[in-house]
Amino acid sequence: MYLNNNPIGVFDSGLGGLTVVKELIRLLPREHIVYYGDTARVPYGTKSREAIIRFSHENMRVLLKRNVKMVVVACNTSSSYALGILRKHFHLPIVGVIDPGARKAAEVTRNKKIGVIATPATVNSRSYARAIARRDRAIKISSQACPLFVPLVEEGWLRKPVTTAVAREYLGPLRRSGIDTLVLGCTHYPLLKSVLKDVMGAKVALVDSAHEVAAEVKRVLHERRLLRTSGGRARRAFLISDRPQQFEKTAREFLGYNIKAVKI
Amino acid sequence: MYLNNNPIGVFDSGLGGLTVVKELIRLLPREHIVYYGDTARVPYGTKSREAIIRFSHENMRVLLKRNVKMVVVACNTSSSYALGILRKHFHLPIVGVIDPGARKAAEVTRNKKIGVIATPATVNSRSYARAIARRDRAIKISSQACPLFVPLVEEGWLRKPVTTAVAREYLGPLRRSGIDTLVLGCTHYPLLKSVLKDVMGAKVALVDSAHEVAAEVKRVLHERRLLRTSGGRARRAFLISDRPQQFEKTAREFLGYNIKAVKI
Repeated sequence: MYLNNNPIGVFDSGLGGLTVVKELIRLLPREHIVYYGDTARVPYGTKSREAIIRFSHENMRVLLKRNVKMVVVACNTSSSYALGILRKHFHLPIVGVIDPGARKAAEVTRNKKIGVIATPATVNSRSYARAIARRDRAIKISSQACPLFVPLVEEGWLRKPVTTAVAREYLGPLRRSGIDTLVLGCTHYPLLKSVLKDVMGAKVALVDSAHEVAAEVKRVLHERRLLRTSGGRARRAFLISDRPQQFEKTAREFLGYNIKAVKI
Repeated sequence: MYLNNNPIGVFDSGLGGLTVVKELIRLLPREHIVYYGDTARVPYGTKSREAIIRFSHENMRVLLKRNVKMVVVACNTSSSYALGILRKHFHLPIVGVIDPGARKAAEVTRNKKIGVIATPATVNSRSYARAIARRDRAIKISSQACPLFVPLVEEGWLRKPVTTAVAREYLGPLRRSGIDTLVLGCTHYPLLKSVLKDVMGAKVALVDSAHEVAAEVKRVLHERRLLRTSGGRARRAFLISDRPQQFEKTAREFLGYNIKAVKI
């Protein structure tokens, strides 16, 4: 089995996972990548556990047909509900976005007070709280669901006063709780970093798991001797289940450049 | 064929169509109703024409299995893209939400300047503009997509300062254009009426198609002699493709009381 030269598979509920792809490309520029965004059913963050697990299984199958050597679940909601189940069911390395972010946050905090912002489903799953507690039981975690952040990012309102007002509304309790570290528990949120910094103040560290996830992928590929060995340019394919209105604009926001995507 | 005592079918992309059901119950309290909300794939308003048409077909089939005598497409996005196609394909009366709202707006306006607010897909389809122009070519129409309104309603932020700020941002151009009538082109928007009134001022009439749709359904049932004739209590069934997080709360907001729903 020479899997080394097969692509890394990445799936997300939509296009937010492209923030993870951006970091993968930065850290592993030679790797082939197949991205699958389930844009026909986005968002997952308000849906039921059952739906999220079923959709995640289906996304895995799409990637396995493309002969991926490993899979990145680049969706916090899927990682929260489906990661364990997917790992039992599919026998290839699967990396989620919760553990890398949780590990980084536990390293960064000094006062052992961490805030987590995410979709309602991710917050309800308590996945970050459990992952952080596994590292250090003494850490106190405050969570806040921010369901309006994804639509604000998708509207492109990244620096509007309204966005700051929404952030103040959501983050008020976290500010008062005295956290020194804030986990951005959704792949859309890195685009709101400047607003979040303004609202939280310079003393609170923002942990964006995209970079940590890419580092974890590199580590896994290295350990399993799965890093690509062949020559030639890296190929990147972008698959979507629907071509949403304003697809090009949204994809460019996340990735930083234009992509061609195939609807399957 | 004695269809009179069969239910009226209603479908929507999610739970917003319950605002239409509320009006149906008010106007036709004796009618059986089967509602189907495609909560697993909500929202439709940012997705492609092809996806919207395919989803609408599938929703029709769910209702036809329940022996509905007619169908209300209680989703502006589905009505905009799929109504004509569904009418060609399925041979039962189908009422959409665009025409009743457009007709009412054309009746209400005095200065022949109408504004339409809706999802990006509905605005892109130009369905309201065409439906209003069919009534009166002299009417000038200004449209504005308001993608943040649905998430704001679903968050329950119906009277927050932030919601007013978002409404000011979207409605600024419409206010300056001198419209005297504003069509609420999405079933979620009636819940924002108090904010919309504040922002637009008392002189602008808000047209909410839910009431007009119910009146149209009554007219169709009467004309086709399909009004229910049997005795006994009206039965109302609520079907959903996923039980989203906070389902009960959201359903109660739209309908005004608690419902039990069956996931299919």
